[in-house]
Amino acid sequence: MIKKIEHIGIAVNDLEAATKTYETLFKASPYKMETVEREGVKTVFFECGESKIELLGATRDDSPIGKYLSKQREGIHHIAFFVDDLASEMSRLQKEGFQLLSESPKRGADNKSIVFLHPKGNHGVLIELCEDQG
Amino acid sequence: MIKKIEHIGIAVNDLEAATKTYETLFKASPYKMETVEREGVKTVFFECGESKIELLGATRDDSPIGKYLSKQREGIHHIAFFVDDLASEMSRLQKEGFQLLSESPKRGADNKSIVFLHPKGNHGVLIELCEDQG
Repeated sequence: MIKKIEHIGIAVNDLEAATKTYETLFKASPYKMETVEREGVKTVFFECGESKIELLGATRDDSPIGKYLSKQREGIHHIAFFVDDLASEMSRLQKEGFQLLSESPKRGADNKSIVFLHPKGNHGVLIELCEDQG
Repeated sequence: MIKKIEHIGIAVNDLEAATKTYETLFKASPYKMETVEREGVKTVFFECGESKIELLGATRDDSPIGKYLSKQREGIHHIAFFVDDLASEMSRLQKEGFQLLSESPKRGADNKSIVFLHPKGNHGVLIELCEDQG
């Protein structure tokens, strides 16, 4: 079951400049910066109510975010929904015809287990489902 | 002051099909459908924690969403942040160099007063600020 928007992921060309912009917007500092080297991404997290804004910068051009930014303009990259039971949601949505981008959850930033749903089944929206890592 | 993500706006080509997709995803029906004729947009709202997902379909091709969909692929269109004092946030952000798309708030869907910030100042993200209408 989806409980809330966990975060909005925003892919940016200049992570330092974007961090300053969102510091000004929120009048607050990021609560976490984390590099996920395996995914070639550096993340900066801001709190926003029960949700977060996650800025995403590429650490190398051939990473998923690096490739995204080379093909598309910077901007909103994905919505992540927090679910109470990732395995059962994956199974339910697969039966409903949603296409999962991995068969089992991957380790994401911010201590989350995550799986993505293909944007083609979601009217152009890359959706992440996540739960806290056990 | 920004308090939370009020909603995520998703521009879709087929509002009926998208409504069905999100009904399946959330296992829930929309709590509201509303046409804002002046803006040429039909909206469908789903609750998600303290936030909402707002599906946006064009009622005519020359409306802002109609033009958006003719130029760009369907997908996430904007993030709306709920603020406690829209007038003071507009004034503060204007002084900080953010570009507002209207000088005074407009009436949006779901009983909100809204103003947009130009995506060029926000690393490609169209940001809406909104407050409840007095």
